[in-house]
Amino acid sequence: LEAAAERRLHPTLAALRRLPEVLAEEPAELTLTVVDGHCTQVEAGPPNGPLVGFALDIGTTTVVLYLLDLVSGAELAHAAMLNPQVAYGDDVIARIHHAGVDPKGLEHLNREIRRAVDELLKKACTEAEVLPATVARGTVVGNATMTHLFCGINPRGLGIAPFAPITHESLTLPGHEFGLRAAPEAVVTVLPNIAGFLGSDTVGVMLAAMAHPQGTCLAVDIGTNGEMVLYHQGRWFGCSAAAGPAFEGARIGCGMRGAAGAISRVDLVDGEPELAVIDGQQPRGLCGSGLLDSIAVLLNSGALDDTGRLVDGDELPATWQARLSGEGPDRRFLLAEQQASATGEALYLTAGDIREVQLAKGSIRASIEALLARAGVTCDEVETVYLAGGFGSYLRVESAIRIGLLPPFDPARVKAVGNGAGAGARLALVSQEERALAEELARRVEVLYLANDLVYQMQFMEQMVFPES
Amino acid sequence: LEAAAERRLHPTLAALRRLPEVLAEEPAELTLTVVDGHCTQVEAGPPNGPLVGFALDIGTTTVVLYLLDLVSGAELAHAAMLNPQVAYGDDVIARIHHAGVDPKGLEHLNREIRRAVDELLKKACTEAEVLPATVARGTVVGNATMTHLFCGINPRGLGIAPFAPITHESLTLPGHEFGLRAAPEAVVTVLPNIAGFLGSDTVGVMLAAMAHPQGTCLAVDIGTNGEMVLYHQGRWFGCSAAAGPAFEGARIGCGMRGAAGAISRVDLVDGEPELAVIDGQQPRGLCGSGLLDSIAVLLNSGALDDTGRLVDGDELPATWQARLSGEGPDRRFLLAEQQASATGEALYLTAGDIREVQLAKGSIRASIEALLARAGVTCDEVETVYLAGGFGSYLRVESAIRIGLLPPFDPARVKAVGNGAGAGARLALVSQEERALAEELARRVEVLYLANDLVYQMQFMEQMVFPES
Repeated sequence: LEAAAERRLHPTLAALRRLPEVLAEEPAELTLTVVDGHCTQVEAGPPNGPLVGFALDIGTTTVVLYLLDLVSGAELAHAAMLNPQVAYGDDVIARIHHAGVDPKGLEHLNREIRRAVDELLKKACTEAEVLPATVARGTVVGNATMTHLFCGINPRGLGIAPFAPITHESLTLPGHEFGLRAAPEAVVTVLPNIAGFLGSDTVGVMLAAMAHPQGTCLAVDIGTNGEMVLYHQGRWFGCSAAAGPAFEGARIGCGMRGAAGAISRVDLVDGEPELAVIDGQQPRGLCGSGLLDSIAVLLNSGALDDTGRLVDGDELPATWQARLSGEGPDRRFLLAEQQASATGEALYLTAGDIREVQLAKGSIRASIEALLARAGVTCDEVETVYLAGGFGSYLRVESAIRIGLLPPFDPARVKAVGNGAGAGARLALVSQEERALAEELARRVEVLYLANDLVYQMQFMEQMVFPES
Repeated sequence: LEAAAERRLHPTLAALRRLPEVLAEEPAELTLTVVDGHCTQVEAGPPNGPLVGFALDIGTTTVVLYLLDLVSGAELAHAAMLNPQVAYGDDVIARIHHAGVDPKGLEHLNREIRRAVDELLKKACTEAEVLPATVARGTVVGNATMTHLFCGINPRGLGIAPFAPITHESLTLPGHEFGLRAAPEAVVTVLPNIAGFLGSDTVGVMLAAMAHPQGTCLAVDIGTNGEMVLYHQGRWFGCSAAAGPAFEGARIGCGMRGAAGAISRVDLVDGEPELAVIDGQQPRGLCGSGLLDSIAVLLNSGALDDTGRLVDGDELPATWQARLSGEGPDRRFLLAEQQASATGEALYLTAGDIREVQLAKGSIRASIEALLARAGVTCDEVETVYLAGGFGSYLRVESAIRIGLLPPFDPARVKAVGNGAGAGARLALVSQEERALAEELARRVEVLYLANDLVYQMQFMEQMVFPES
């Protein structure tokens, strides 16, 4: 037994430390966990469960962990939670700042995310009825700031020109080197970054959606930042644009995340706006997809002009005129009356909300145009458009096109891919080829720096307005 | 700079964590420490000293650390201390026992040796005026129990049949995995074991003395255990024998270690014993080499017969008769009178002391005979005999042969090699080839298990007596 455990399997120190205890039981059988040619774990007796691994998607706001059977690739459990680093700031800039100015900042941010991952691991393992200590492998994706903080590397370089990550390569180390207590012996791979503002989350989206592209295609992941990658004739082009948190419900008067009570759809039925609310409750606010729909409906009804101004309303039907109130920057549109609202207050879409959307969609759309221009591709030549992320999955494509967030693609060519970053992490978890591919894809993307991009700057101005119907 | 640091140099996580701080200084120059293709350390500016490493010899009693310039191989400093684990027992059996029975035993023993190594590292670095954190590499030798404890691996398997070490392979890991705080990023290699009772210390002796043998040769390292390796016609044979601590001055009435005040030489001058004392002081006791000489002198003078009995003395000169006193087991020989002794008490060699030496030398000699028999070699065919270790370096070869500790080799063929284990660790520190050779040598030794060896058992009985002059 010792011979098998030691001679060719390159045991880790932890496995060696465990061995005397295991051998003391004089087991008739040993179970060795061998990952990348290293024996990482050794237990007496037959295997006491499937070989499992975790795929981790560290979002600025939400952390999601999937527990997979490493042999079948089947999902055994998943768990999600708010990224506890939000206590130190909502966005990556705030986190970078905190790590840069507070001497203990990096330590705190790193500890928060390590603990969160430990918690998610335990939760998912409990659900799947496996021991966290037997988790053999893990993969991690996130934007570069999130993965820097997970690794305990100060992200300060991501906040100043040239916004370079400390490394573009993937990093594979045992869990304990990352300070993971729940899975100290798991072999954990942090997928590579493309650039400081195009992290391993984007590589995940690429793996999931466009690793083996059949024709020209575009992947767009819209969060607080919008990341997008275009494939055309053997080349990949990528860029990132600050979108602001409007589509996640922040900086919008009655904005909220896409949870129970959120207005997620707005339709024009018999000339009147009709709201669909998540879980069918009375509305509490407006999430990203509802926000797009509202603006599309306002545009279609003529209540909103292409400059983003809520019209005076004389030419509108009386019911619409009744919904508009206020003047100038205080002008607003009534979404739900007080008695129809779960908050006890009427819900409005304000001129300010509309301005936020114009900024956000202008930036995203300009980035897409810049990518298309760089590749020399027209919007009609794009055969498939992949929308990743929660917002991308729930938005109504027609509304996104109506307000000009997306170019006038054929809606039939637009596919939602859900959590593309997480899906990529899952693929990389179960396949060495996918991990190698991630490394290759990250290297091959030609990165556009929008700050210097003339097309982007001109488009940003142009795309602030809404398209004419 | 980032590109160089990351693209091909496979930085360690620690190096990546250090990088933002280093880059924040906007250095014109970077110094990267690259060990085995991994960038382990990164600093701003030009190199601030030589590239250094440590060679560590963990003895059951004494721990020695050498600090070397990794480029020139020159020794910059060395430091030694008592192994603090002696608080938990003098010999390996006591340490194995403590690790086995006390739930915290392994942790305590491991912590003691880690702290000792940290202390020695700091001391040697201070002397050499280098920063411990810049130590790039380390090698470690010791008997299997010592290296198990250094690695934090329970040595319980070394205490019970088949006395197998947890691994026969070398182990290379960053210092922090071994819990070394003084050199967390040093790449540390624990040299391989040959068997449970033939550790990496013996591999070190082989590297230093017989890695490229020109003819039949034997290396013997006598401590509490005696380890020996014989090379003959392309094969290596090795074994280990319990010698007891007699040659280290323990279990001997006035025994002591080879320090100031120890009788280290005894000659017969004009028919009378003449003592040489370390540092020329008044004698405080008898160390191993003095013990051998005393017995040789007693044998030559006729005061000790070949069965190990101090004779009655009627036929001895009057001065000798006066030195002998007591009867039966209490019979003893006066080495130094009360007024000539630094302890204020007369120093004697007792019948019991002589019995201890008979046991120890019988065991060592029988082992050598068993090795020679196994290889089919006579003692005259051995072209070189290497004596390693403190005792081996200081003993008088003629006395060792006179009392039968060694077979009747030609004394001109016997060479003291000093701390052979440490010398081997030093060779392995500065050369990848030597590290590979260590691995090969450890595998090639054919191990004799003396418990089952008939030659050993018969010789042990025979070699208890002293040779006739």
